Amino acid sequence: MAIRKLVVIGVGLIGGSCALALRSAGAVERIVGVGRGRANLDAALRRGMIDAALTLDDDWTSELAAADVVLIATPVAQYPKLFDAIAAAMGPSTIVTDAGSTKQDVVDAACAAFGDAFPRFVPAHPIAGSERSGAVAADASLFAQRNVIVTPVQQTAADALARVTSMWQACGARVTAMSPLDHDHALAAVSHLPHVLAFVLVDELAARANSDALFERAGTGFRDFTRIAGSSSEMWRDVALANRDALLEELDRYRAALDEARQLLRNGDGSGLESLFERAATARRRLDDPRPDESGAE
Amino acid sequence: MAIRKLVVIGVGLIGGSCALALRSAGAVERIVGVGRGRANLDAALRRGMIDAALTLDDDWTSELAAADVVLIATPVAQYPKLFDAIAAAMGPSTIVTDAGSTKQDVVDAACAAFGDAFPRFVPAHPIAGSERSGAVAADASLFAQRNVIVTPVQQTAADALARVTSMWQACGARVTAMSPLDHDHALAAVSHLPHVLAFVLVDELAARANSDALFERAGTGFRDFTRIAGSSSEMWRDVALANRDALLEELDRYRAALDEARQLLRNGDGSGLESLFERAATARRRLDDPRPDESGAE
Repeated sequence: MAIRKLVVIGVGLIGGSCALALRSAGAVERIVGVGRGRANLDAALRRGMIDAALTLDDDWTSELAAADVVLIATPVAQYPKLFDAIAAAMGPSTIVTDAGSTKQDVVDAACAAFGDAFPRFVPAHPIAGSERSGAVAADASLFAQRNVIVTPVQQTAADALARVTSMWQACGARVTAMSPLDHDHALAAVSHLPHVLAFVLVDELAARANSDALFERAGTGFRDFTRIAGSSSEMWRDVALANRDALLEELDRYRAALDEARQLLRNGDGSGLESLFERAATARRRLDDPRPDESGAE
Repeated sequence: MAIRKLVVIGVGLIGGSCALALRSAGAVERIVGVGRGRANLDAALRRGMIDAALTLDDDWTSELAAADVVLIATPVAQYPKLFDAIAAAMGPSTIVTDAGSTKQDVVDAACAAFGDAFPRFVPAHPIAGSERSGAVAADASLFAQRNVIVTPVQQTAADALARVTSMWQACGARVTAMSPLDHDHALAAVSHLPHVLAFVLVDELAARANSDALFERAGTGFRDFTRIAGSSSEMWRDVALANRDALLEELDRYRAALDEARQLLRNGDGSGLESLFERAATARRRLDDPRPDESGAE
């Protein structure tokens, strides 16, 4: 099942980490990296994560005919143009997959672009990342024990799905399947909304005249809470727009819940606040440790 | 400057960690722990962080006359009752300090309770913690390189302030001073508000029928963002109520900023969203690394 030739478009945190992981697992022979910027590709070459590097201004599509797998790991807004270029140049057995944070829009665009080859497009989303980006941030263990969600549709070829599944398993990931729409709704709640909430908080505080003094008082709680606000603005702009309806729905549910908490606070309702906080704390602790809570609060 | 006798009321994460840190620095001779629950005190004794343990039902106030320093590290709602008991039993040179997350309410209550001894009350707030609680979670290095804010008022005795300052410095902390009100406003923004935001998100998701499936899809970003939602509900109820006005003000500023972001999303304003996200990302990255950002996003 080893991949003889892999083309990674977007050799950043995700694409670069996948390349490193497959290489260290011995699951790939040759990797060609394609990207917008020469400096990042050079960093990827230096780190040995790719064997050859081409920018989007080079003749990169000539690499596709002999590729077993093409992994698209750029911001989602670049997909439609890439899809058209790939569709015109991919080989008869080339499998195309992606790593985008939204899936229904990707499936729609792929269906339009790939035509007869659409069964060989396998939509996927590795749930891993960091606020860092670029090839310099890539890490062979980024996907170890992490979830990768594949969102095949009716037309998706079973052998293509199997190949992409085993590629991510070779990276150490757990692979599960969902429909594209279910994926987008779930991720709007547990990923896209928290990113927006964190971006908004940091931006609101940073705009204040005393922002330096405020940030100096911040503890580890604030740092953890806002870590995702250091993420790529371009990527998250694309995610927000691509999943706009689901994200708006999540935002509205959140605002309603926040208004309820505000009302408890305004009313000085200590037991209402404590109940809310305790329900949340119990659920959150269960996420780290499925056993019953044993901490003896003082 | 070593403390001969320290009484710690509330041997939880904060009180217990301070005891461990002072002990490992050789800055204290004898530590008496006082608390509500026997089980937690026994854990503190087993870990060697205290030399003797008394519950609030025992005759704990007889320990105060010979105490150099009394550290109150319980939830803030217990302070008024503790203050009265301490004021009636403290020795002529005993210094009292606390570790509460709000300060103006604490100063007001201390002023009312301590009378002539009020100059020997030093309000303080170590900006350190974790979502874990109890003596089992205490850690001698919890305060290393962390900020402790002291909020002395006009009446506070300089020698009492110096003693509490050097106590926290012995724990490895950096000690800075603010007014109680400035402290409460700053902490509402960078600590109390983020806790409420995280509690509300986890509670809202946990209440859904598909919450298990949602939490299964959560990545490290969600875990970091919501870590503080595992914190003590009792402590945060008290903080929210004690700092209600400043927290309501912060909540309202945040809601207004969130509404603006929602409007950008609704309008599909990609460049507006990207600007907001980029301002936040730049500010957040500076918090970890004051040098200019060098990451080459792909």
